[in-house]
Amino acid sequence: MSAELGGLMLELGRRALEAADALAGSSRERRDAALRAAAGELRAQSGRILSANGLDLLAAESAGLNRAMLDRLRLDPDRIESMAVGLEAIASLPDPLGRILEEKVRPNGLLIQRISVPLGVIGIIYESRPNVTADAGALCLKSGNAVILRGGSEAVNSNQAIHACLVAGLVSVGLPAECIQRVPTQDREAVGYLLKGMTDYIDVIVPRGGKGLIARVREEARVPVIGHLDGNCHVYVNAAADVNVAREIVLNSKLRRTGICGAAETVLFDRPILASHAEPIVAALLKAGCEVRGDEDIQSLDPRVLAATEEDWYTEYLDAIVAVRTVEGVEAAMKHIARYGSAHTESIVTTDQAVAELFLAGVDSAIVLHNASTQFADGGEFGMGAEIGISTDRFHARGPVGLEQLVSYKYVVRGQGQVRPH
Amino acid sequence: MSAELGGLMLELGRRALEAADALAGSSRERRDAALRAAAGELRAQSGRILSANGLDLLAAESAGLNRAMLDRLRLDPDRIESMAVGLEAIASLPDPLGRILEEKVRPNGLLIQRISVPLGVIGIIYESRPNVTADAGALCLKSGNAVILRGGSEAVNSNQAIHACLVAGLVSVGLPAECIQRVPTQDREAVGYLLKGMTDYIDVIVPRGGKGLIARVREEARVPVIGHLDGNCHVYVNAAADVNVAREIVLNSKLRRTGICGAAETVLFDRPILASHAEPIVAALLKAGCEVRGDEDIQSLDPRVLAATEEDWYTEYLDAIVAVRTVEGVEAAMKHIARYGSAHTESIVTTDQAVAELFLAGVDSAIVLHNASTQFADGGEFGMGAEIGISTDRFHARGPVGLEQLVSYKYVVRGQGQVRPH
Repeated sequence: MSAELGGLMLELGRRALEAADALAGSSRERRDAALRAAAGELRAQSGRILSANGLDLLAAESAGLNRAMLDRLRLDPDRIESMAVGLEAIASLPDPLGRILEEKVRPNGLLIQRISVPLGVIGIIYESRPNVTADAGALCLKSGNAVILRGGSEAVNSNQAIHACLVAGLVSVGLPAECIQRVPTQDREAVGYLLKGMTDYIDVIVPRGGKGLIARVREEARVPVIGHLDGNCHVYVNAAADVNVAREIVLNSKLRRTGICGAAETVLFDRPILASHAEPIVAALLKAGCEVRGDEDIQSLDPRVLAATEEDWYTEYLDAIVAVRTVEGVEAAMKHIARYGSAHTESIVTTDQAVAELFLAGVDSAIVLHNASTQFADGGEFGMGAEIGISTDRFHARGPVGLEQLVSYKYVVRGQGQVRPH
Repeated sequence: MSAELGGLMLELGRRALEAADALAGSSRERRDAALRAAAGELRAQSGRILSANGLDLLAAESAGLNRAMLDRLRLDPDRIESMAVGLEAIASLPDPLGRILEEKVRPNGLLIQRISVPLGVIGIIYESRPNVTADAGALCLKSGNAVILRGGSEAVNSNQAIHACLVAGLVSVGLPAECIQRVPTQDREAVGYLLKGMTDYIDVIVPRGGKGLIARVREEARVPVIGHLDGNCHVYVNAAADVNVAREIVLNSKLRRTGICGAAETVLFDRPILASHAEPIVAALLKAGCEVRGDEDIQSLDPRVLAATEEDWYTEYLDAIVAVRTVEGVEAAMKHIARYGSAHTESIVTTDQAVAELFLAGVDSAIVLHNASTQFADGGEFGMGAEIGISTDRFHARGPVGLEQLVSYKYVVRGQGQVRPH
């Protein structure tokens, strides 16, 4: 690695650490004011942001990015307004810092409180969508953490323009500009520094992007990571399901948005309801433009169903494709999910409460639902206000990661001269 | 790494995963019954355990281990009884699993609960003290986690004998013996497998041991770690301190036990109270057999005070040695702690409530105390019943790590057919 880049990155780290100190002692009012000022700045600078985004789009088109990627990259006045509204919404959320998470008085009179504090310095590595610059920067600021943002090279001009608005918001209320820093180079080695070369400065890494990025982060990181691998989510339609409820939930889980991690990828039907439930629901999926890949029993329901292979049960399509399988009851459904799933989000549709409880208790996923769409796997839908991602880890944060997952805690103990007996 | 060892370790991992599945569905009653049965077994097998320990002690003596290490290794009937009582105490603690950590009804009618679940499989790597086999095994079992224990080679026979009692407890209540496994070889490469070769099986590593072990774990681990680096703890005696309270707290913090991570290593005195407070407290420390290393002002108080060097402010002595420094008020004390401390445990002694609040809010350590001994840094003293260690990390667990820190959570969502609007 180059000495010049190394020096640059360590300097970013040192400044982040200083900013984190300043933030830890800052008031909620000041942090919220910075967010509101940044929202105003986004609106005021929308022309500049759109010009910068135009440069990125031109470069992306000539580099041959596909339509989905171009769409993720594209900003327009509505999307900029959404970012601004998002910052104001985060400003309005309750303060995640200084909360008394636990409190007790010990028999010896010591008052022990567990109080939420910032994690420190968070590194965020993300791809394409420029709105992540605003969302992630704002969530970190709100939770009192300094952040170092490293966006994708395809969005470099957009990210720079959005970042400038965040910095203007910080500076306008007297907070250090270094509370929200951007890695000022697209050198790929910079990611290596964030992951393993700055362990004295970075407390947590949050990757947001495709499987390649997540895999690199898992392999290289020497600091804790909040990430998610994939969302191979299931809907299990139990023999006791209401067919209308099942159809609505399956269609919504699969097709409301196919590109999000909470989208269902496999639907399981109990054998006794193949004709009554699976057949009309498969027909509805096909009618809605969804490719269906099924086992032999599902194929026999409709000639348009393609043959599913073993690989399909593992696959997160993120597209209008669904795998459908016949199972022999709730235990078999749970076994399928344990074997092929990614422990993200699974839903059971049934009117049998006892079977539902078995499923909810026995399926070891971040989110388990009864009679509801897997597309509810979202911090906003969980009432968190905003999320930085959905974790399939079990450590520190699981499921949607909102402000309450971006904090640590400390113990504050108040005594009257107590010493510990021998 | 050898293929044979690799196969052995992966087999341990597979079995642990299976046992973890069984444990996740087990009742609190069964896990507690296993702990109580293991306690009975420890008592019944105390002769066998003492014989095994005798073998370890003989080997350790001929290997030239020092007296402190021999003491940590030694078991006697009282220590075995303590282990048994410890298991029973853990059995009596509240169930950390299935707790509703959070509950809300969303405007769309979804009931969302956040419920505690096991972490999964925990690897524990520890040195010398054989009681860790019982304590750590029991805490993991109580919290529904399968555990793979890797003790030090100096305690191999003791650990084996204690482990056999835990397994007998498991088997007697019909739980898989593999809920608590021991690495059956002292091959040092086995540690490498635990740290980085079994990422599909191990969810968390807990190291308990000296700095060498912790450093190796930090460097090599590819799974999350709950560990602590060191406890360079401080007592700050503020100008407004009661001298008697200060003396009791300083002596207890330093000398009650010098070898624990919550023992104070540096005492800071405000300049105006050097004569009134520092002089008699330094004299009391010296009288109690503690070596005192001070700055020039402290040296001028007593000819027996040695000169402290810059290195002393960084040092965790874990011995009857203390560094003493003069500071110019609470801000200077906080700066010293931020610069030289290890963010473990710090105490302020003062009658000035405003100064105390400044210190409690501004010192970024896992535990901050007002008018109490640093030696309270202990899970038992915090009412956790038992602890597996004290974390100076900020991620997942900070401070004493008890049952509530050995769990993860999942979201259980109950609906009536809700789908997510576009």
